[in-house]
Amino acid sequence: MSEFTDIASYVEGLARNAKEASRPLGFAPNEVRAGAVRAMAAALRERADEVLAANEADMEAARAAGLSDGLLDRLLLTPERVEGMACGLEALALLPDPVGRVLDHRTIDCGLDLTKVSVPLGLVAMVYEARPNVTADAAGICIRTGNACILRGGSVAQRSCAAIARVLADAVEARGLPRAAISIIETTDRAATGVLMGLRGVVDVLIPRGGAGLIQRCVREASVPVIETGTGNCHIYVHESADLSKAVPIVVNAKCQRVGVCNAAESLLVDEAVAERFLAEMLPVLAERGVLVHGDAFTCDAARKMGLGDRCVPATDEDWGREYLALEISVKVVSGIDEAIAHINRYGTHHSEAIVAEDDAACERFLVEVDASSVYANASTRFTDGGEFGLGAEIGISTQKLHARGPFAAEALTTYKYEVRGTGQVRP
Amino acid sequence: MSEFTDIASYVEGLARNAKEASRPLGFAPNEVRAGAVRAMAAALRERADEVLAANEADMEAARAAGLSDGLLDRLLLTPERVEGMACGLEALALLPDPVGRVLDHRTIDCGLDLTKVSVPLGLVAMVYEARPNVTADAAGICIRTGNACILRGGSVAQRSCAAIARVLADAVEARGLPRAAISIIETTDRAATGVLMGLRGVVDVLIPRGGAGLIQRCVREASVPVIETGTGNCHIYVHESADLSKAVPIVVNAKCQRVGVCNAAESLLVDEAVAERFLAEMLPVLAERGVLVHGDAFTCDAARKMGLGDRCVPATDEDWGREYLALEISVKVVSGIDEAIAHINRYGTHHSEAIVAEDDAACERFLVEVDASSVYANASTRFTDGGEFGLGAEIGISTQKLHARGPFAAEALTTYKYEVRGTGQVRP
Repeated sequence: MSEFTDIASYVEGLARNAKEASRPLGFAPNEVRAGAVRAMAAALRERADEVLAANEADMEAARAAGLSDGLLDRLLLTPERVEGMACGLEALALLPDPVGRVLDHRTIDCGLDLTKVSVPLGLVAMVYEARPNVTADAAGICIRTGNACILRGGSVAQRSCAAIARVLADAVEARGLPRAAISIIETTDRAATGVLMGLRGVVDVLIPRGGAGLIQRCVREASVPVIETGTGNCHIYVHESADLSKAVPIVVNAKCQRVGVCNAAESLLVDEAVAERFLAEMLPVLAERGVLVHGDAFTCDAARKMGLGDRCVPATDEDWGREYLALEISVKVVSGIDEAIAHINRYGTHHSEAIVAEDDAACERFLVEVDASSVYANASTRFTDGGEFGLGAEIGISTQKLHARGPFAAEALTTYKYEVRGTGQVRP
Repeated sequence: MSEFTDIASYVEGLARNAKEASRPLGFAPNEVRAGAVRAMAAALRERADEVLAANEADMEAARAAGLSDGLLDRLLLTPERVEGMACGLEALALLPDPVGRVLDHRTIDCGLDLTKVSVPLGLVAMVYEARPNVTADAAGICIRTGNACILRGGSVAQRSCAAIARVLADAVEARGLPRAAISIIETTDRAATGVLMGLRGVVDVLIPRGGAGLIQRCVREASVPVIETGTGNCHIYVHESADLSKAVPIVVNAKCQRVGVCNAAESLLVDEAVAERFLAEMLPVLAERGVLVHGDAFTCDAARKMGLGDRCVPATDEDWGREYLALEISVKVVSGIDEAIAHINRYGTHHSEAIVAEDDAACERFLVEVDASSVYANASTRFTDGGEFGLGAEIGISTQKLHARGPFAAEALTTYKYEVRGTGQVRP
């Protein structure tokens, strides 16, 4: 994009056009928005070759640059993955309309008729990394909710994202909506993200999707509102009343079923009353699954006695706050539920936390006193997910408390307004 | 507070204690929180003399510093005003519990029981200016909603705010809740506000109440979440179908009933089809009320012809965006509803906007297409207020779109969590 000598004016121009496009989109009827999303799905299917060709160019460059296999897999598009994007869009079209919901209605004393109604936010900015399919997910959820979007994909996925956005914008335009409603930043200059984060009054919300570095940069530097997603230092707490035949599979599932995700367990707390018995069952299973334990003194000692000393290293204070996103877990023996709750509220990231206990009072206390978006009694933290919770297509999992918390879906891309109908009322 | 050589550690220490206090408060039963708020009211009545003496010291210093009458009036406490604070607290105690509301409940396929329940935010920071009574309002609404608060009053009101906070903290402590739940920053060092704004992970939300300077500083500089309140560049748009016998009183009420407030009208738009007839009625009334008009060419011309040339100055482009908070108003003739809506969406602050029209289609179009927290057909913008809307004690009027928009009350000081009860479920 060498023709854009001034990144700031390029990004601001794109964003202002997108914001302008958000207005007619915002009051387009449900059928029009749902129809546009269906047309986006159809266009992706029809023009899959164009998208796959762009992706092949990204893949070639990425291979040449020596990217890791994991990253290459995230970048790769296949006919099946394009079909997956199209199906995702069709599912969005079927959602009940998130816009125009009457949230409250009353007549106030002086005769004014007051309706609180859900409306789109306006312009949604999404900043993401290697996965090109986020382009379709983000554009789809925005159009469905009457929002325009400005997208900023990772530089390795530049061509793929641009091709997808072009196909989708064409489809939207063919349905009589402004194509600027799906805008994409086409430069690999990192300064573009900085500009986007500062467009107060133009960008209504910024949602970063990606690694902790990206998200923390947005939270720290953005002057536009941000929905913070991501970091999950999730705990499993095994209470003295736990049924160990539940505890062991829950830990294995939460740690091992998918290690690179934010709702995976990163830390295990065990009541000292059951520590010896539980660790005797748990540590061999973790070792067998290839999980490295960062243990406190008791845990390391137990591991050594079982001949698993090489699978357990001493935990440092830093380990209690770490999100490994790998086959590693910290393990600490606690004196009881007080210490467990205090530890989680101190080191957790308010994402997902679980207790395993047969004692109902302990479960209820944990559910109430632990400060997290999703708190579990006797289940794996891996369930924290918009789809699993039945909320529909998830935009992300919010670790903040304002606006959206936990898994959030289309509704989080709306705000509300009060419509007041009168007959000349003035305030006494 | 010369003993605090290190403002940063002083403020951070206070905030961390307050955060600690938020935990037991957060799961205290409704009766305990409501009882504490009633005890706060009783304590204020009992110890009114102590509060009034502190206020007299503030007043003396303020008079010596030559503060304006307006500011002195905002600072002044009287027995009646203390009684007003006590009554406000008692009204809060009567509110239905904002905490523990079940917002959603479902059993998901694998048998997990999912409850979405409202919970307190944790630690609420309020930064405000001259009015000492904000101390009681803020502390009351926080305790009622299970939040701890850290308060930062204006330096002129330092002694009054500290005295009120002390009385209220004593009352809370006497009811068995931690007194740090009502914490107040007792230093006039401006750096304290900066420290508070940066306490991510400790302060859960910052709500500035005061002038545009304070609010903009918080929005720009805070790394903690902020609820932006305040600025209102509100418009009254007189459509060609308007009943002028409604339009004139609505404009007078919106502009003159109370000029220093954010829901007062600052700009008047008039369809050209009725401009001559409407201005012939409106301009003399505004002149009589002492309102200075910043008019476009047509308006200035009309004023001159009526012999009101001295009450109308030419508007500059800047006037369209100005919040006068005074007996001044900008007036512009527009070609019709398209131009009116575009003008409001460009120059408004998304606070409160009104159309006066007998044509229902015009009203409905305005209500839908204008992007503001509160949109009115045939009523004064002055109704935008938590009390008027029947929402209960208002914390402020939000001009942002995320979390809370428009007048917001106790509910905005809650978030939610998902409580998930299982029997050993793991994710397949």
